[in-house]
Amino acid sequence: MTTTSDATTTTAAPHGATTAPPAGPSPEVTAAVHEIARRAQAAAPQIATATRAVKDAALHALADALVERADAIVTANAEDLERGRQNGMSPGLLDRLTLTPERIAGIADALRELAALPDPVGEVVRGSTLPNGLRLTQTRVPMGVVGMIYEARPNVTVDAAGLGLKSGNAVILRGGSAAASSNSLIVQVLSEALEAQGLPADLVQSIDAYGREGAVALMHARGLVDLLVPRGGADLISTVVRESKVPVVETGTGNCHVFVDAAADPEMALEIVLNAKTQRVGVCNAAETLLVHRDIASTFLPTVLPALAARDVVLHGDDAVRAAAPAGVRVDEADDEDWATEYLALELAVKVVDDVEDAIAHIRRWSSGHTEAVVTNDLAVADRFVQGVDSAAVMVNASTRFTDGGEFGLGAEIGISTQKMHARGPMGLAELTTTKWVVRGDGQVRG
Amino acid sequence: MTTTSDATTTTAAPHGATTAPPAGPSPEVTAAVHEIARRAQAAAPQIATATRAVKDAALHALADALVERADAIVTANAEDLERGRQNGMSPGLLDRLTLTPERIAGIADALRELAALPDPVGEVVRGSTLPNGLRLTQTRVPMGVVGMIYEARPNVTVDAAGLGLKSGNAVILRGGSAAASSNSLIVQVLSEALEAQGLPADLVQSIDAYGREGAVALMHARGLVDLLVPRGGADLISTVVRESKVPVVETGTGNCHVFVDAAADPEMALEIVLNAKTQRVGVCNAAETLLVHRDIASTFLPTVLPALAARDVVLHGDDAVRAAAPAGVRVDEADDEDWATEYLALELAVKVVDDVEDAIAHIRRWSSGHTEAVVTNDLAVADRFVQGVDSAAVMVNASTRFTDGGEFGLGAEIGISTQKMHARGPMGLAELTTTKWVVRGDGQVRG
Repeated sequence: MTTTSDATTTTAAPHGATTAPPAGPSPEVTAAVHEIARRAQAAAPQIATATRAVKDAALHALADALVERADAIVTANAEDLERGRQNGMSPGLLDRLTLTPERIAGIADALRELAALPDPVGEVVRGSTLPNGLRLTQTRVPMGVVGMIYEARPNVTVDAAGLGLKSGNAVILRGGSAAASSNSLIVQVLSEALEAQGLPADLVQSIDAYGREGAVALMHARGLVDLLVPRGGADLISTVVRESKVPVVETGTGNCHVFVDAAADPEMALEIVLNAKTQRVGVCNAAETLLVHRDIASTFLPTVLPALAARDVVLHGDDAVRAAAPAGVRVDEADDEDWATEYLALELAVKVVDDVEDAIAHIRRWSSGHTEAVVTNDLAVADRFVQGVDSAAVMVNASTRFTDGGEFGLGAEIGISTQKMHARGPMGLAELTTTKWVVRGDGQVRG
Repeated sequence: MTTTSDATTTTAAPHGATTAPPAGPSPEVTAAVHEIARRAQAAAPQIATATRAVKDAALHALADALVERADAIVTANAEDLERGRQNGMSPGLLDRLTLTPERIAGIADALRELAALPDPVGEVVRGSTLPNGLRLTQTRVPMGVVGMIYEARPNVTVDAAGLGLKSGNAVILRGGSAAASSNSLIVQVLSEALEAQGLPADLVQSIDAYGREGAVALMHARGLVDLLVPRGGADLISTVVRESKVPVVETGTGNCHVFVDAAADPEMALEIVLNAKTQRVGVCNAAETLLVHRDIASTFLPTVLPALAARDVVLHGDDAVRAAAPAGVRVDEADDEDWATEYLALELAVKVVDDVEDAIAHIRRWSSGHTEAVVTNDLAVADRFVQGVDSAAVMVNASTRFTDGGEFGLGAEIGISTQKMHARGPMGLAELTTTKWVVRGDGQVRG
């Protein structure tokens, strides 16, 4: 959404959302949530067929309304912050939860940036004229009703609403309970602003009032929700993926690797490793494991390990790494848990591998399929790495941190898909659409 | 697959597969099926990185092997047919189950046609150079492991294997138990032929030996199956969609509508209605409901109803239809069940609607989202119908029967998706792939 790459942020300790094994929702909650979904479904055609001009005007109106109501939103947010403090929320999470007039202005600006993006709806994906004269086009159309389940970050409420509306969808939101007061008012502000624009208020609805049960009811709303996107920590995502009866895109978990090949430029490799690990921690496109080719282990490791340690990175290494570590650089013994862990912290697993095949094998076994990078000047190694790694994004001589909708020029993203169906990698506006085949004829029948 | 549109065939009374509420699989069955999936996953990289030449040569080898072993396959098939007769299988289903040397030759030819199609793998979908010099491409790559759950049609065993291999995937097959003997031998023939080509036998595996429990174990094989496609009757599809923990594409159910507008050419409308309903029944792209504009009800219905009746179509109509039916044409009273039913038979629901909006509202309420057709010469009506209907395919002045991978020029199809995520409409080779972002740089790091 913004250049700070909010969408790629994951939290190691998610708060408030559906992280525990969910209870089956009561019939009352199911009925209430499904009624909300039916209202979304009823409202959806009006935004689906709205022109880009109408949608962009609405996005500007939403942005203006948020800025106008900023004081009230900050007051509501103060309630969430007070509750968070009483519940012992960490300073980092409290910071993510905090809204200020400046942050609200930034969130509003993101809506205006969305308005400036091209409309994905109506794009002709494929087309041809068939031998029998039928004229065939496959055209992007909105999904219909998009659900979003996320954690205690009130900016996501606005991001998700904006992305959904720009791509022509009705949106149902379920935010973390820790942001309940902020989200409740934000959704009210957005709905009122939509109504003032002559669009249905039901295009943006929240189910926060129904708690965790409501979230599960949404996951079970088959036929009422066309796409459900979880955004947050690994627990939240796996719960949504496991429980959902509606189509869902798995996002976010990033156990990303950097492989430094024997033919790497050592200075480039050092810069990329430091950037991938330390430029921003706690994001899904940060590196979690460094793989070093055996042939350069004795030269590269003595450089990279102290540089990482100097940036307070806690290191876990295999025997070869520990043997190559200079005196004074502490490297804990790595085990399988380290290869499997997305630290989301200043912590890195380091392993010596025999060659690119060994690196690929390690990555195929342990990666979450998000982003992997190779640093090499050997073209065959680069090609083999690109081909052999089975992840959403593969970087050659670039930091893993570039896997991001904004960086890729998609303009915005609702999350980063680590599954292979529907969308893979950063999900922009196009990934919130489906297609429709339109066939125009003059009376053709099948023989 | 072939021009007879096998892929669109659905059966009203599916046999043998997972139609009853499935029992949870035993730990032994789960372990066995997941081991098969792990073997598929281990074999997958070899076909994923195979060149088109290698894949096409393999498809020809599979075709040759089927023809060489045709006698043995017919013998195995005779066992299935005998069991089917003893179980009282209907003549229609027995016919679908039957393999003859000629039919086997046709199935083999379909593999050769697949070999002639372009390779979807490697297609560059999008690409750009970013302001920081990073070169970005989004390229089609295979899914990995594709599962297929279908009914008692042994030709699907070969179709699914061929489509999966051509698109670079390992394939796990679960056919209807009624075709167990045929499928078992066919899978053996295909596996042996792959091995003779230097490819892993595990690229095509069956889980038929594990019965219904095995099918459920496959649906639960998260992380081992990248895409699961059910193909068959509505019960099978809804079971797979409901039970699956792996990514699944819902296919096939087609409650398709034809709307004859006031501005329709009546002769064209008559031809399209007759073709959509009677050219082939029991297929998902056949029409199940006819909607007629009120302004032409008194002229068009007296023509179309007798023509349908003359082709043995059983008619169900609302009051206005019944009032317009000529003497001697029987029209039963239609109720909500008729609007909801995919007859898959010489049976049609008929309704008079006020205008295109009324037609759209009826379709949005009752359609399964497969294919709808409008017959009109009024451009505004045509545009509004195309926009307002929310289905995979919309026909203007053409029969619903054209929604088919072969007819659309996709060359082949594994099914017709009625969901919006990943694929919508006929699923060809491209729909059995995902994409990978490849980012090439010269040392870029994120600032």
